[in-house]
Amino acid sequence: MSSIPAQIPAYIDANAKAFVDRLARAVAIPSISGDVNNRKDVFAMADFLEGELVKLGVSVKRAKLGKQVLDGVELELPDAILGTLGSDKAKKTILLYGHFDVQPALKSDGWDTEPFVLTEDPETGRLIGRGSSDDKGPVLGWLNAIEAYQKSNVEIPVNIKFCFEGMEESGSEGLDELIEAEAKAGGYFHGVDAVCISDNYWLNTRTPALTYGLRGISYYKITIAGPARDLHSGVFGRTVHEPMTDLIALMSKLVTPSGDILVPGVEDLVAPLTEQEKARYVSLDYSVSDVEHSAGAKVALSDDKATVLMGRMRYPSLSLHGIEGAFSAPGAKTVIPAKVSGKFSIRLVPDQTPATVDPLVIAYLKSEFAKLNTKNTLSIENLHGGKPWVADPDHWNYEAAKRATKAVYGRAPDLTREGGSIPVTLTFAESLGVNVLLLPMGRGDDGAHSTNEKLDKSNFLQGSKLLGTYLWEVAKS
Amino acid sequence: MSSIPAQIPAYIDANAKAFVDRLARAVAIPSISGDVNNRKDVFAMADFLEGELVKLGVSVKRAKLGKQVLDGVELELPDAILGTLGSDKAKKTILLYGHFDVQPALKSDGWDTEPFVLTEDPETGRLIGRGSSDDKGPVLGWLNAIEAYQKSNVEIPVNIKFCFEGMEESGSEGLDELIEAEAKAGGYFHGVDAVCISDNYWLNTRTPALTYGLRGISYYKITIAGPARDLHSGVFGRTVHEPMTDLIALMSKLVTPSGDILVPGVEDLVAPLTEQEKARYVSLDYSVSDVEHSAGAKVALSDDKATVLMGRMRYPSLSLHGIEGAFSAPGAKTVIPAKVSGKFSIRLVPDQTPATVDPLVIAYLKSEFAKLNTKNTLSIENLHGGKPWVADPDHWNYEAAKRATKAVYGRAPDLTREGGSIPVTLTFAESLGVNVLLLPMGRGDDGAHSTNEKLDKSNFLQGSKLLGTYLWEVAKS
Repeated sequence: MSSIPAQIPAYIDANAKAFVDRLARAVAIPSISGDVNNRKDVFAMADFLEGELVKLGVSVKRAKLGKQVLDGVELELPDAILGTLGSDKAKKTILLYGHFDVQPALKSDGWDTEPFVLTEDPETGRLIGRGSSDDKGPVLGWLNAIEAYQKSNVEIPVNIKFCFEGMEESGSEGLDELIEAEAKAGGYFHGVDAVCISDNYWLNTRTPALTYGLRGISYYKITIAGPARDLHSGVFGRTVHEPMTDLIALMSKLVTPSGDILVPGVEDLVAPLTEQEKARYVSLDYSVSDVEHSAGAKVALSDDKATVLMGRMRYPSLSLHGIEGAFSAPGAKTVIPAKVSGKFSIRLVPDQTPATVDPLVIAYLKSEFAKLNTKNTLSIENLHGGKPWVADPDHWNYEAAKRATKAVYGRAPDLTREGGSIPVTLTFAESLGVNVLLLPMGRGDDGAHSTNEKLDKSNFLQGSKLLGTYLWEVAKS
Repeated sequence: MSSIPAQIPAYIDANAKAFVDRLARAVAIPSISGDVNNRKDVFAMADFLEGELVKLGVSVKRAKLGKQVLDGVELELPDAILGTLGSDKAKKTILLYGHFDVQPALKSDGWDTEPFVLTEDPETGRLIGRGSSDDKGPVLGWLNAIEAYQKSNVEIPVNIKFCFEGMEESGSEGLDELIEAEAKAGGYFHGVDAVCISDNYWLNTRTPALTYGLRGISYYKITIAGPARDLHSGVFGRTVHEPMTDLIALMSKLVTPSGDILVPGVEDLVAPLTEQEKARYVSLDYSVSDVEHSAGAKVALSDDKATVLMGRMRYPSLSLHGIEGAFSAPGAKTVIPAKVSGKFSIRLVPDQTPATVDPLVIAYLKSEFAKLNTKNTLSIENLHGGKPWVADPDHWNYEAAKRATKAVYGRAPDLTREGGSIPVTLTFAESLGVNVLLLPMGRGDDGAHSTNEKLDKSNFLQGSKLLGTYLWEVAKS
């Protein structure tokens, strides 16, 4: 079979500066979906993206998703951007998903550069900025590839449907309903043959990957309240039940320092490990020093590679993210906070689901709280949740991506499962009944959700070629 | 003996508006000593106070206290304001102490009004604002009283020495050395006959109080670090040792929900309770509903009044204040924080001292941390400390204050010990070898260090009369 015409990757190399400049314009829009104050920026980012798609001849439809209440404020949910490019009945139709919202970022969190100014490090070629890798780089990667086809006068061999959302970092609110509705006969997504999502990372910093599994998530906020206002610890210490004492006691009952989840029944829901599955982790191009390189310190939970990989890919994890309402600034404030909220989440794996895990967590928290014998009160909220997902990695959609990887990178990809959650993956798989492929652009050390998030410039450009080549190869499958 | 000339309290009533206006000007200066960004405001507050003292004919000397490093920034410590009014060898010399710095405050912490705008609630007569009660109201109360003497053409019957500092909320850094030096022969404070400090609160909202004991404090910051940067919990959950898991485990080992301190040996250092001492708590004008009224909720640790009072006055307390470096904003961020610092403090009582307690705390933390078997690292800092203090409540200095209370409020004061720390109290007592009296202006529900801090207008005015009458009575002792 013929390979992708050489002028397409050549166009991407020749237009590297313009593509990086466009990424910088996207990063400059602080489209943080979880912050009330940035909701206007999420809308601005939708406008930007719509404009770029229209330039490429994409027929765009903005989908209203309704309203939400965030921190007591009623807000319009960001529009989803739907798009269509091509409607040739002789071609396959591929649905591309990405998101244009980002995680919060403040320079004071520990960034070396302004988080919303894309900064190229000339030594390493890193493009540093919030959203560079998660997920503005990959979203623009699709646009780069399509532009390369068009400017090279090569017909795109598939029809494309776009689904770009602005709430991925905040639970994809409103999107499930949209996808389910549009998947039905007569809907926008009806008749799609396969889905491709570029919103995750290579396992390491060397080897391209295809991902066929994701962990789910349940994110909890537990609030303990007592006094009507913050109190002076000198005046009230040892006279009242302190909400922080109760909250810390409760949070300490959730997970051990070695990562075992203490909520009874939660680990029991995990599908048993087979020898065959274990062998797959042993064969991946990965070492414990890779995780320690990514984390920047020798803090791996185990010295055994397969154990560390399985901790990320096929076992659940429970992370304590922080506390809202307590003293969190530098210095020494002698306060008894009146109302404190602990945030934690569990990454779910088959056969766990939020529906099976949430009741166990809630019952356990209530039972442990009762043991504290405190006069303070407990409330538990589930902020968002998503089921885990696993796909067939031998489907033609994956085979196309394997050939594209070989063509661009000269090697076979790692076949991975990921520790993160993209709940929409499962919604696509279940609503459309088609194969979903995760085709990552960035490396394992990109630092998504962290300070100094980056996308290597080579990954941005080779990744744009990879996405373009995948469109070529998937047409032939 | 003759009582204070009636024109002095009358002057205070007649000039209420001017006095409240002056307090508003003081509150408007955000003199937060614990925040690098507000250091200039602490100096501005020193300038303001010096100006007001000079207007009253006080001879002012500003004492440089050196430098400190705060959050990595080298800063000039705020000047202490020393002052002298009168040097008649036939009169007693009374040293007055107060502080002009305040705790941090942000409207977003939950204030109903702007914290640095003194707001009078016309219904309740409350003067609401950061520092209104702690300690700008009392400091200006002395000035009100002196002005009343002068404008009434009544000679002040004592010599006055002033010591006003700008670092009380941040461990009174530099002040101990100053006091110790100035207490020596030839020093500024040499020859002082007694000390009076107005920087605490009535036990309740009804009964004036004199305070003859204070708890000390040891304030700790424990930092657990591991990864070089914040990590994505999807990518790294269950692959690395998470600093938050370790920190929460450690913080959960410090105190029970009922207030018992779990650090071995710390409770053993508390002086045994005698029947005679216990009887004193039983007799105070206080009920459990008073503490619950102040706290705004039914969260008292006990239903027994004496138990609650002793928890505050004669037993140590351990409060968990918060965590620096973790996710503390609203919303749902799926971060594994790389470096987190837990803040907690222990309020000390006789016979505990920082010197005896700190080694127990540090050894216990290290031993509990070792049990976690984590690859993260622990560091422990003691941010500040102060010994507890108890004085003789039958000394002539206290007898003068009892007569003054009777004259202004028509009733005998409660004799209390306080739960808070004013470490300088002990420094005065030990350096000068004289009796120190705590003569509070505000009520037990003023909310010092909390949101919506207030000083009742009647306490400001009656309190100014009380301070003036104390100066009259102490001359006769």
